[in-house]
Amino acid sequence: MNTKDKFYYFDNNATTRIAPEVLEAMMPFLTDFWGNPSSAYGFGEKINQYIVKAREQLAALINAEPENIVFTSCGTESNNTAFHTALNSNPKKRHVLTTAVEHSTNIAHGKHLQRQGYQITFLPVEPDGSLDLCLLTDSIREDTAIVSVMWANNETGVVLPIEEIAAICRVRGVPFHTDAVQVAGKIPIDVQTNQVDFLSLSSHKLYAPKGTGILYIKPGTPFSPYLFGGGQEKGRRGGTENVAGIVGFGKAAEMALADIGDHSEDRKLRDKLESGLMSAIPGTVRNGAKEPRLPNTSYLAFEGVEAEAMLIGLDQLGICVSAGSACKTGAIEPSHVLTAMGIKSALAKSSIRFSLGRYNREEEVDFLLEKVPEVVKKIRAASPQTRLKELGI
Amino acid sequence: MNTKDKFYYFDNNATTRIAPEVLEAMMPFLTDFWGNPSSAYGFGEKINQYIVKAREQLAALINAEPENIVFTSCGTESNNTAFHTALNSNPKKRHVLTTAVEHSTNIAHGKHLQRQGYQITFLPVEPDGSLDLCLLTDSIREDTAIVSVMWANNETGVVLPIEEIAAICRVRGVPFHTDAVQVAGKIPIDVQTNQVDFLSLSSHKLYAPKGTGILYIKPGTPFSPYLFGGGQEKGRRGGTENVAGIVGFGKAAEMALADIGDHSEDRKLRDKLESGLMSAIPGTVRNGAKEPRLPNTSYLAFEGVEAEAMLIGLDQLGICVSAGSACKTGAIEPSHVLTAMGIKSALAKSSIRFSLGRYNREEEVDFLLEKVPEVVKKIRAASPQTRLKELGI
Repeated sequence: MNTKDKFYYFDNNATTRIAPEVLEAMMPFLTDFWGNPSSAYGFGEKINQYIVKAREQLAALINAEPENIVFTSCGTESNNTAFHTALNSNPKKRHVLTTAVEHSTNIAHGKHLQRQGYQITFLPVEPDGSLDLCLLTDSIREDTAIVSVMWANNETGVVLPIEEIAAICRVRGVPFHTDAVQVAGKIPIDVQTNQVDFLSLSSHKLYAPKGTGILYIKPGTPFSPYLFGGGQEKGRRGGTENVAGIVGFGKAAEMALADIGDHSEDRKLRDKLESGLMSAIPGTVRNGAKEPRLPNTSYLAFEGVEAEAMLIGLDQLGICVSAGSACKTGAIEPSHVLTAMGIKSALAKSSIRFSLGRYNREEEVDFLLEKVPEVVKKIRAASPQTRLKELGI
Repeated sequence: MNTKDKFYYFDNNATTRIAPEVLEAMMPFLTDFWGNPSSAYGFGEKINQYIVKAREQLAALINAEPENIVFTSCGTESNNTAFHTALNSNPKKRHVLTTAVEHSTNIAHGKHLQRQGYQITFLPVEPDGSLDLCLLTDSIREDTAIVSVMWANNETGVVLPIEEIAAICRVRGVPFHTDAVQVAGKIPIDVQTNQVDFLSLSSHKLYAPKGTGILYIKPGTPFSPYLFGGGQEKGRRGGTENVAGIVGFGKAAEMALADIGDHSEDRKLRDKLESGLMSAIPGTVRNGAKEPRLPNTSYLAFEGVEAEAMLIGLDQLGICVSAGSACKTGAIEPSHVLTAMGIKSALAKSSIRFSLGRYNREEEVDFLLEKVPEVVKKIRAASPQTRLKELGI
């Protein structure tokens, strides 16, 4: 394997480069300090201190107390745990209220629960990706066990009003979970202010390796574990701790907190890319509201251009971006997010997400501004519609 | 942090040192190759190839087909998934048959399921840790959804007749799961021969970092996921893959397979330690059968010696071992394994597990043979009983 070829990574909502500082923090736990943190001897206890520290670092990032942070294996596990714990703590309540634009964890888990006899409401959204809070309020039922709404959408970057939603749920006495995986490091998180009951984060969206997540649990919120094992995480999550991953996640959280600012630089770069592409390429539309939106995400539809062809064309130039949905089977289905927003299938299938990150530089944006219009032009030129038009048919 | 002090690690059933070769295999995925293996572009696809390879390496270790291996975050998740999938695939069957000496994952999960209204049988074992197969057979019910019996006990090392148990379950048409976490790398695993339906392994017991596991699923066995996410692992386990962890686990499996042999060297070292301690220290008894037993495990009770005092005394000499159960609260409860074997509480609380591994050397065993008797002697000398005896009371 080699990475000699220069590449242009604009897919930071899919995963992020591992920060060298994060790897440096992890290395002792991949070499000399490989012990089990639950062990009674000094070698284990010493390692456990670094889990304590990582928990403090994560807590600081979201302004929580460390004891309310549970380490998991990923955002998926955190999200699944929130549903599970709410349904399990209150067996008579068999309704889950979530949205149609959630990450596939909530969608897939919701569909599974439906097959189990639970009732799940997937709330529709507005064409700009925003959520009708009156509709949300009206959809909370007596038997609603949990409301789960993502803080920012992974495809459009549209930010939802989590603090207001949490307040609505609090008034109705229903626990509220938010998937904040895309938010961490991009906008500040303060669980004292937003008062959510559960919040999920994932390590690999924050410049740490894949394989770690957290679930924040507000004090006093009933909790029942999803993974049962040797009493780790004070009995809240079984399984020997992924020490190196946890330490790396802690370091990543510390770095994200130090760098949280207003992200005006990120926003400027994203806006340069977005407005540049929209003005250079006719028939380009943005999916989702311009604001409030994550400062790093731009989700553009190029009319008449199959996203799959774009991905291939851009990949040949070393440009890494995503279509709305991952394509594993060869047939790109329109993104469930865009479908829920009422975007027509053809446009949805022409959508490309650009998501910037800490390591993107202006030269890279300039490269995209030069190359993406060329690729779009080529694909459009090769399309049957264009050729029919050229032939006057 | 430093590891300048020499230490003597005899706790390989708790976790293992990370093999330098494993770390070397992982490093590219912690540095240059940090992409998301599900991404459509070349950078992602390239990374995915290494997950394919790791799956092959794990499959080879247990003589399975790669497509029947699902990567998880740990042995706990694998064990929990087996229970979940069996109960979920067959909702009318609400009985789980397992043993009283399982790893705490099965015990804790079983107790949770009991609270949920399921019926769980925790089969007792014989005083030597063996299982009465007639009792097991008679305990399978019409509504038994799954039988789960660990292959080798993590405390005693006692090996159970998995092939026979699988055959009994097959005849009765009940899926059979085995927790083989302690077995990998110590005795050969062949799922074509033993015909188990589910089998769990954990990375960190095999000289790879914590944070990865597998669940083997026999072809044709109904399966329903435990974690729901973006369709990873062919829809069988959601969550972005812990790429570095998976690659490391693959390398560890390859090394374990190459080294599987008859473990006569390990056994010789363990037997030297065990017989040496038993003859040097009066009132020492082995917990569990001598054979069949893992070649690396020796679980000894030192009459009249509190395990907690032993752990502290040995830790001061740099000797890392475990008592029967992890002590997090200050009060050592007698091990549930020893309790199930009918060992008296006082003796159970005097039990120390020595578990050897790839990196133990004979000089280390010699060091223990010199020091452990001294520590036992000191503790016994300091005990109230001894002093009362000295005073003739």
